[in-house]
Amino acid sequence: MATADLKSHLKSRCEQVDSALESYLPAPDIRPQTIHEAMRYSVFAGGKRLRPILCMEAALACGGTAESALAPAASVECIHTYSLIHDDLPCMDDDDLRRGMPTSHVKYGEGIAVLAGDALLTVAFEILAGTALPTDGSYSAGDLVTELAVTSGSRHLVGGQVLDLEGEGQDVQLSLEELKYIHLSKTAALLTTSLRLGGMVADASAEQLQALTDFGTNLGLAFQIIDDILDVTQSTEKLGKSAGKDEATDKSTYPALFGLDQSREEAAKLTAAAHSALAPFGETGSCLADIADYLLDRDY
Amino acid sequence: MATADLKSHLKSRCEQVDSALESYLPAPDIRPQTIHEAMRYSVFAGGKRLRPILCMEAALACGGTAESALAPAASVECIHTYSLIHDDLPCMDDDDLRRGMPTSHVKYGEGIAVLAGDALLTVAFEILAGTALPTDGSYSAGDLVTELAVTSGSRHLVGGQVLDLEGEGQDVQLSLEELKYIHLSKTAALLTTSLRLGGMVADASAEQLQALTDFGTNLGLAFQIIDDILDVTQSTEKLGKSAGKDEATDKSTYPALFGLDQSREEAAKLTAAAHSALAPFGETGSCLADIADYLLDRDY
Repeated sequence: MATADLKSHLKSRCEQVDSALESYLPAPDIRPQTIHEAMRYSVFAGGKRLRPILCMEAALACGGTAESALAPAASVECIHTYSLIHDDLPCMDDDDLRRGMPTSHVKYGEGIAVLAGDALLTVAFEILAGTALPTDGSYSAGDLVTELAVTSGSRHLVGGQVLDLEGEGQDVQLSLEELKYIHLSKTAALLTTSLRLGGMVADASAEQLQALTDFGTNLGLAFQIIDDILDVTQSTEKLGKSAGKDEATDKSTYPALFGLDQSREEAAKLTAAAHSALAPFGETGSCLADIADYLLDRDY
Repeated sequence: MATADLKSHLKSRCEQVDSALESYLPAPDIRPQTIHEAMRYSVFAGGKRLRPILCMEAALACGGTAESALAPAASVECIHTYSLIHDDLPCMDDDDLRRGMPTSHVKYGEGIAVLAGDALLTVAFEILAGTALPTDGSYSAGDLVTELAVTSGSRHLVGGQVLDLEGEGQDVQLSLEELKYIHLSKTAALLTTSLRLGGMVADASAEQLQALTDFGTNLGLAFQIIDDILDVTQSTEKLGKSAGKDEATDKSTYPALFGLDQSREEAAKLTAAAHSALAPFGETGSCLADIADYLLDRDY
């Protein structure tokens, strides 16, 4: 797909995701209003909706419809948003700015920010448990919940943030192996699960799920390296979040360990590996491949 | 059941619950160790296991076995523990002591305490999604997850904490209606869901689930009133948490609104209503009735 066509495709997917989130999240006038406003403030702060889009495109690649994956798509975005709200707290990364807007705790105070994260984490499982699945398919709502809970829990998403928190402000650089472990936990795991949930809704075969897993793992590692490169090379204005933060906090990153050029090379290699993983899909995997290229070349 | 027999029954249930939690929670040596230690620190801090026991006894009352409800039982205890960790944070109720031990953020720092709560909330859904259910029963793992997510989310458990947070330190007393709403959200909802999940595992009829709901609602309101009475009448040492806190923070409570005598009367009335709700169970509901009486007469 030409870049302009892909951009317009992603934009229309974004609109589908936003409209699903709009319908799945409790209305802002439901009591207590503060929490429902705070949940929506962060969810509708202009995210790229990468995870939900991957979920929908994976369902398509596995022979389902993109629309059948809207519930898991909305669910993974709620998990992503909750993790950002909690990561930004003063007791974690202490960030005031996210997507060009004041972070949740700056806007609502720390107590409500903690609770808004808790509520989004919880509603993610409510939304996911309500997914309509093929009646004679291989996967149940219970399987979807297990997939998301394992990825979001102490061994992966939360675990990665623990390691990040423990590593920050220390003078010692992490080893490449440790760094990769954090990237796998914090970034690749949820991208992979987004893809797998889409596959499960489309009753994917074991081979297809494995292909999505390999694609997601490589894409996730590439995505995080690019993110760390942009933290060095782009402005706060462009990123919509505080730039230069990694260096200021002595955070271990690919650019810090290997420099920018070698980091860019590694991201390109991982993106190529992501492409190869899509082989079993043939032509139906082309949109996922285009997205991988697009993410490699992004500048924000 | 005589009080001594009930106490010994509850103790043996506690041991079953502890052993289930031991097997369901990630081992403390799994990486990252800090988070798995912190999760276990709060879960094994000597809770009364009221919610899991209600879950097990409800399964029994509905004709199932208590043991078949161990997964949802462990799951509701994880939710309860997460909510205590987050409620105790400096940005919420700012409590240093819980069950006679330093709270999670005092022991591990605020960042890890937030993450330990997040991880327990998440693992609750992992455990629940793995519940073994009767193959030809009316309820799926998805139904169980929906039940727990709705109760734990922004409309109930989290919502109640929001109202609590917004009400604290204000000179204005809440109305009785507002206070009841907070108690229903913060306390009665999770007690009721614990009972209902036990019922669902035992393939309860609609009439049985309704009876458990009515029992849980009345029991939950009585439980919270007793809790607020004990905050006034008992020592910090006896309670294992900071006593006299409600008055110090101008918190609206039953004793503050109506005095101790009228509060005790109300708790007794609600306990009687809880008893009546158990009528459909006949003799099989007697253990739940005994627990209600025991909670009314507790002094810690």
